[in-house]
Amino acid sequence: MIRTRLTQRYNLTHPILSAPMALASGGVLAAAVTSAGGLGFIGGAYGDTGWTMQAFKDAGGGRVGCGFITWKLAENPDLLTRVLEREPAALFLSFGDPARFASEIAAAGVPLICQVQTLRDAQHAADVGADAIVAQGAEAGGHGEKRATMTLVPEVADWLAGNAPDVLLVAAGGIADGRGLTASLMLGADGVLVGSRLWASAESLAHPNMVKAAIAATGDDTIRSTVMDVARELNWPARYTARVLKNAFTDRWHGDLGGLLQVAKTEAARWSAAWDVGDVEVANAFVGEVTGLIHGREPAAEIIENMVTEAEAMLRGAVSRLEE
Amino acid sequence: MIRTRLTQRYNLTHPILSAPMALASGGVLAAAVTSAGGLGFIGGAYGDTGWTMQAFKDAGGGRVGCGFITWKLAENPDLLTRVLEREPAALFLSFGDPARFASEIAAAGVPLICQVQTLRDAQHAADVGADAIVAQGAEAGGHGEKRATMTLVPEVADWLAGNAPDVLLVAAGGIADGRGLTASLMLGADGVLVGSRLWASAESLAHPNMVKAAIAATGDDTIRSTVMDVARELNWPARYTARVLKNAFTDRWHGDLGGLLQVAKTEAARWSAAWDVGDVEVANAFVGEVTGLIHGREPAAEIIENMVTEAEAMLRGAVSRLEE
Repeated sequence: MIRTRLTQRYNLTHPILSAPMALASGGVLAAAVTSAGGLGFIGGAYGDTGWTMQAFKDAGGGRVGCGFITWKLAENPDLLTRVLEREPAALFLSFGDPARFASEIAAAGVPLICQVQTLRDAQHAADVGADAIVAQGAEAGGHGEKRATMTLVPEVADWLAGNAPDVLLVAAGGIADGRGLTASLMLGADGVLVGSRLWASAESLAHPNMVKAAIAATGDDTIRSTVMDVARELNWPARYTARVLKNAFTDRWHGDLGGLLQVAKTEAARWSAAWDVGDVEVANAFVGEVTGLIHGREPAAEIIENMVTEAEAMLRGAVSRLEE
Repeated sequence: MIRTRLTQRYNLTHPILSAPMALASGGVLAAAVTSAGGLGFIGGAYGDTGWTMQAFKDAGGGRVGCGFITWKLAENPDLLTRVLEREPAALFLSFGDPARFASEIAAAGVPLICQVQTLRDAQHAADVGADAIVAQGAEAGGHGEKRATMTLVPEVADWLAGNAPDVLLVAAGGIADGRGLTASLMLGADGVLVGSRLWASAESLAHPNMVKAAIAATGDDTIRSTVMDVARELNWPARYTARVLKNAFTDRWHGDLGGLLQVAKTEAARWSAAWDVGDVEVANAFVGEVTGLIHGREPAAEIIENMVTEAEAMLRGAVSRLEE
């Protein structure tokens, strides 16, 4: 077993959190991740109360956390109160200023985990009382920004070491197997957040066609874009883009936002209809560059066990890379 | 000492190559890197014959490699012949199709190292006979593309293992210390290519003001842009952007290429004059996201020794992260 400050503080078997992925991370996936020794998160992302409460039911009373898109939660802050009543293992906030919600979360005695995409936001998260910071690189699937995991993690680690040494650090973006887990530990993380790899798990709510397309793709086949959000009028702040599988929709509109705006309503309806039926040429799979490392849709427990087994072997064998 | 296939094949003490950085990697830096146990590269990047030949003189007969911007070398292919006569330790090509030059390099008995930014180009490099492939992530300084080191390295490693197992794999982008070196090995690389960290070395030709600005910056302060190239009419293929320190110049023109084109001649002259005198508000430092991990301008030997010492300790201690 890999022991880190993350496993110790949250009483985990493995230093692995699942990402609270909007519309993919339901209660079944979250519970499966916890059951496998990590900590699973419900993706209450777009702030829908009914969906989120149902996810907690689906988790079957298992110990799980819950994550929100911060700027979206601000439109329905009562949902936070409802979720805190369910005593989540941790509350995860990303994409927006966590300050507004920090005191309510602290008062509930729930650890606040803040996902950030820049050093500056990591510093702010520590200032508002984050218990753990997730440093997310741009290789991640779904929403994010520009910096890479490879540099953001050690830079945040250095800052935390000097300024907030009790705050845990979790790496996110580009982590799908034991290599990514081990590399993250070497970069200074206490553990990892796994998104895309668990999006492509048996328990994820992702449409089978989307996962099938991701399995067939290489890491060259993704793109960071805003066209899906622009079409759907989701009002994401401009700094955030989403990494998705390229398809005919992004080929047509990425680089022609002006044109898309003129037909946004039609295109949004078309995109959403395609999403519902899993038409991967119109709707986009929200998956990261690790899509090139995903070759099947296994149960979450198998994915986590494979990651950990590979990482343990790498840690055990690391010294053999040295020669006197 | 860390032993890998890279150290064995190229007879190195450490699995570290220096990047052939245009206008920064002269013969003195290249020789210093080799002397410190890695393999140093002259950055004959923009294909200037006089500059490149002088760099070989400056290397003082030390064993060094030489790198070119592939699409630029095509404008002055005789330079390759001249350089091969100097018996470089390796010939490094990046940014363009290496096929045209592969046979001349092979005939000279010089190992061809191809830097790539996508899986597809890695496959092509192996097909044309690359001895080693450098997988460069977008976090790197200077020119590059979009994919991240964290995912590109393991994906290329998997492909090579199944299709071209004798081709070496080197990680580039985001590697500045022992953490980055160790993480790269865990991701499946046989070694690393270090750019920015050695750009900020005592032997680099980078202007002192540029290095000073980089030392003061965080990793949040860089940007991938084309405005420096557009202004200078360098005709870089559209797929390649360059990561630089943000300044007033990129603030003004990034996002307004049309406006820049209208005043390109004036702005290019202003940028170049600023480059010559090290005016960091107008000219841009070509440095990667690891700028946030750089805190001084030490000799190359010290930088390499620190990287290796830290990495060795991490490899030696890795097993202690496990608990029964």
